Amino acid sequence: MPITMYSGSVPVFLQLLPAMSGCLDKAQAFAESRKYDPNLLLQLRLAPDMFPFARQVQQATAHALAPGRIAGVELPNLTDCTTIPELKQRIATTVDFLKGIQPAQIDGKENAEVTVQLGPNMRQFKAQNLLYHHALPNFYFHTTTAYDILRHYGVELGKRDFMGQMPG
Amino acid sequence: MPITMYSGSVPVFLQLLPAMSGCLDKAQAFAESRKYDPNLLLQLRLAPDMFPFARQVQQATAHALAPGRIAGVELPNLTDCTTIPELKQRIATTVDFLKGIQPAQIDGKENAEVTVQLGPNMRQFKAQNLLYHHALPNFYFHTTTAYDILRHYGVELGKRDFMGQMPG
Repeated sequence: MPITMYSGSVPVFLQLLPAMSGCLDKAQAFAESRKYDPNLLLQLRLAPDMFPFARQVQQATAHALAPGRIAGVELPNLTDCTTIPELKQRIATTVDFLKGIQPAQIDGKENAEVTVQLGPNMRQFKAQNLLYHHALPNFYFHTTTAYDILRHYGVELGKRDFMGQMPG
Repeated sequence: MPITMYSGSVPVFLQLLPAMSGCLDKAQAFAESRKYDPNLLLQLRLAPDMFPFARQVQQATAHALAPGRIAGVELPNLTDCTTIPELKQRIATTVDFLKGIQPAQIDGKENAEVTVQLGPNMRQFKAQNLLYHHALPNFYFHTTTAYDILRHYGVELGKRDFMGQMPG
């Protein structure tokens, strides 16, 4: 099978998102073992002017919707989260959404123009650039930073927890 | 142009690697403005059992050689670094190497078997999995963690410094 817009991106999101959900399980269990409220983790940051953990996970899931933007389908309504179960639900909603995207909905659309709202601004991308040069770098940035926050604050995780399960 | 093994990966490395080199310039200038030795940054970590900054950059560049592994060409000899200029040289060597890879050397090799030494072990991958499900996730993990270390220790950087310049 030659690589396509779909096969180079959707299976990647579907590798990393369940891994992030698994990291949340381990974070919850770790906090409980240390007898602190697991939801305190959601406010932790690596620097005062970086997003806290909850926002890192939220940004990762928002960027993972890019295949849906290219497909031109209605996106799921991802709401802000204040607990670990809510973050896990947000990830699950994103995974379900991505599983519903068919390769034919985005393959061959490399040069389609896609308009995306970024904060207050509208920005136009070629679909291939949106996916491989904007959404995936942002997705990886926020999943990694979420992992780094947990590691920095002592949650017992290893690189495999980040990497998840490669397709067979 | 339909997406290929090459176009979905090499231009991504070539977006992020010069950005990381730019972050190193800003880190050096920041340290000098604060009158500490910039090379002290190379030893900083987010957790005692995570790699320090220098090793994060080294791992990122090592994983960026994956297209060369698939092409079956001789890889550049990337040596360990103890200074910021050495890290910048290592990134520059990696960038030059990637610029020398031609699309025809890796396109169509999705299912080729590639053997990679990972620490003490040899591991076999299908080329598409090596590139999109192992090398790129690792590359992003280490570039992001390098950025996160600098941000955590106060270097003045923003997300744009991480993202670099998207292809036109």
